[in-house]
Amino acid sequence: MSAQLIDGKAIADQVHHETRQRVQTLLTRGIQPAIVFVRVGEDPASRAYVGMKDKQAAALGILSRTHVLPETTTQPELLALIDSLNADPNTHGILVQAPLPSHISETAVFFRVDPRKDVDGFHPLNVGKLLLGDPSGFRPCTPAGVQELLIRSRIPTAGALVAILGRGNIVGKPLAAILCQKAPSANATVCLLHSASRDFSALTRQADIVVAAMGRAELVRAHHIKPGATVIDVGVNRIDDPASPRGYRLVGDIAFDEITHVAAHVTPNPGGVGPMTIAMLMANTVTAAEALTA
Amino acid sequence: MSAQLIDGKAIADQVHHETRQRVQTLLTRGIQPAIVFVRVGEDPASRAYVGMKDKQAAALGILSRTHVLPETTTQPELLALIDSLNADPNTHGILVQAPLPSHISETAVFFRVDPRKDVDGFHPLNVGKLLLGDPSGFRPCTPAGVQELLIRSRIPTAGALVAILGRGNIVGKPLAAILCQKAPSANATVCLLHSASRDFSALTRQADIVVAAMGRAELVRAHHIKPGATVIDVGVNRIDDPASPRGYRLVGDIAFDEITHVAAHVTPNPGGVGPMTIAMLMANTVTAAEALTA
Repeated sequence: MSAQLIDGKAIADQVHHETRQRVQTLLTRGIQPAIVFVRVGEDPASRAYVGMKDKQAAALGILSRTHVLPETTTQPELLALIDSLNADPNTHGILVQAPLPSHISETAVFFRVDPRKDVDGFHPLNVGKLLLGDPSGFRPCTPAGVQELLIRSRIPTAGALVAILGRGNIVGKPLAAILCQKAPSANATVCLLHSASRDFSALTRQADIVVAAMGRAELVRAHHIKPGATVIDVGVNRIDDPASPRGYRLVGDIAFDEITHVAAHVTPNPGGVGPMTIAMLMANTVTAAEALTA
Repeated sequence: MSAQLIDGKAIADQVHHETRQRVQTLLTRGIQPAIVFVRVGEDPASRAYVGMKDKQAAALGILSRTHVLPETTTQPELLALIDSLNADPNTHGILVQAPLPSHISETAVFFRVDPRKDVDGFHPLNVGKLLLGDPSGFRPCTPAGVQELLIRSRIPTAGALVAILGRGNIVGKPLAAILCQKAPSANATVCLLHSASRDFSALTRQADIVVAAMGRAELVRAHHIKPGATVIDVGVNRIDDPASPRGYRLVGDIAFDEITHVAAHVTPNPGGVGPMTIAMLMANTVTAAEALTA
C-alpha cells in the first residue's frame, strides 16, 4: 500500500487561480500588483529561483522586475536600492534573494525592507506578529505553504502532534509559530527538533504530522514514522550521483520510497512544498498591493 | 525524598546585585537609568505589581515614575502619553501594565512603545528578533527569568526535552522561542502544549524540564512528570478557600506537594519565577539606558 500523494503542484495551481482573480479585481481599479526581485551575484540556484518566481508573476498578471547587482555590491549600495524601492509607490513587494555575498549582512538587509512590502515575511516585525498571532503581518512563504497544503488536503492540525525537524528562520521556527496558534487550521501541539535533539525518532514516531526541514538528505526513514502519519518534505539536498549527467541529484529530507509504505499522506519532492512557496509569495504580493492601495 | 528547591528569590538577588553594579557604572557617567510605569484604572493586582516593581527599582538606584490614568482614559490619550515618553530622553524604559480596560487595544498600545524602550519585550519587533535569534532585542521578562533560573541552577537545556504548557504571548510562546535557539543555555528540543493538546501527559512524562504556564490551578500532577525532571511553575491561580481571611488563596499550575517527591528540581511558588520577572525587568531597564546613552 502506498501513501496518498499531497500534490503540491495541483494545490499551488488552486492558490494561483485565486490569486489571479484577486489580480483581476485590482486591475479593474487601475492597480497592477508589482514585485521587485533583487539578486546579488550569479549564484546559479538564486538565478533559477528568481527566474521561476518572475515567470510565475508574469503568468498571474503581476508586474515583475529584477535588479541584478554585481557580487561586489557594497551593503550601503544594496540598502540604498532597498530604500528607493520602499519609497516607490509602484512597488508593492520586495524580495531580496538569499544567500547574499558574505560581506553583506542578511539581517541588516531584511530589516531594511519596509515591513508592508516584505512579501518574504522575513522582517522581524512580521516574524513577531506571526508568533504573537497578529494576522496583520506577512507570513513567510514556505511555512505558509506547508499550512496551506495541510488545509487543502483536509489533514487536521487541531490537537495533532506535529514534529518539525529543523529550526531555521525560513521554515522550522516560523512554521512552529504558525501551527501552535489558537486559530483555525493551526492549534497543534508542536515539537521543534533540530541538530542538538537527542533521539529525534522518539518524538517523530508519536507525531501525527512530521515536517522535515533539516537539510539532511533522506534523514527521515520509515521506522521514524507512525503508521498513518502525514509527512511533509521541505528538504532540497544535493548528493553525488556519478550516473547523472550533472554528477549529482537532488533529494529531500525523507526517504520517500520507504515512507510511502508507512505514511497515509506524503509530499512528493519535487512537486510538494516547492510550488507552494512560490504560490504563497504571489499571494503575499497581491495582499501587499491590496493593503498599500486600500 | 524531596526535590531540590530552585530558589527564585536568591537567584533574583544575584541578578539584582549585578544590575546594581551596572547602575553604579552608569551613574559614574552621570546617567541614572529611568523607568516609567503606566497604569490605567485601579485593578488591585496591577496596583500590587506596579508597586513591587517601583520599589525594586528604587532599591537598585533606578529612577522610577508611575503614571496612573483613570479607567475612562481613551486609547488616543494613552497613545499620546506613550509618544511623549518615547520622545523623552530621560525615560529609558516604558512599561504599560496589563490588563488594560477593554475599550483599549493592548496590541495597539504595546506596538506604540519605542522598541528601544520596550523593557517588557512585548513589541512585535522584539518578539520577532527573539524568534529569529537576533540578540539585539529585549527578551520578555518572565521567560527570560525562567531561562536564568535554569542557567544559575546549572540545569542543562542543550539537547533536553522541554515541555512548555501554555502558549500565551507573555510566557509560553516566547519561552519556546528562547529555548529552541542554537545558543548557549538554550538548544533544547521544545514541545509547546496547550488547551487543545490531546493527552498532554504523554509528552510531559518524557520531558527533562516541564514549565507550567497554563493558568490552571495544580494542573500538573506527580504522575505527569518523569522522575528526576525539573519542574518550573509559572502559574498564579486564585482558588476559593473559605478558611482564608480573604476567602481565596493563590496556587500555582503544579501540585507542589506531590511533585516534590518525583522531580529532582522544582520552583517554589511564590518565591520561584515571580521574583525573576522583576529581576529581568530591572536588568532590561539598565540595558535600555546603556544602549540609549551609548
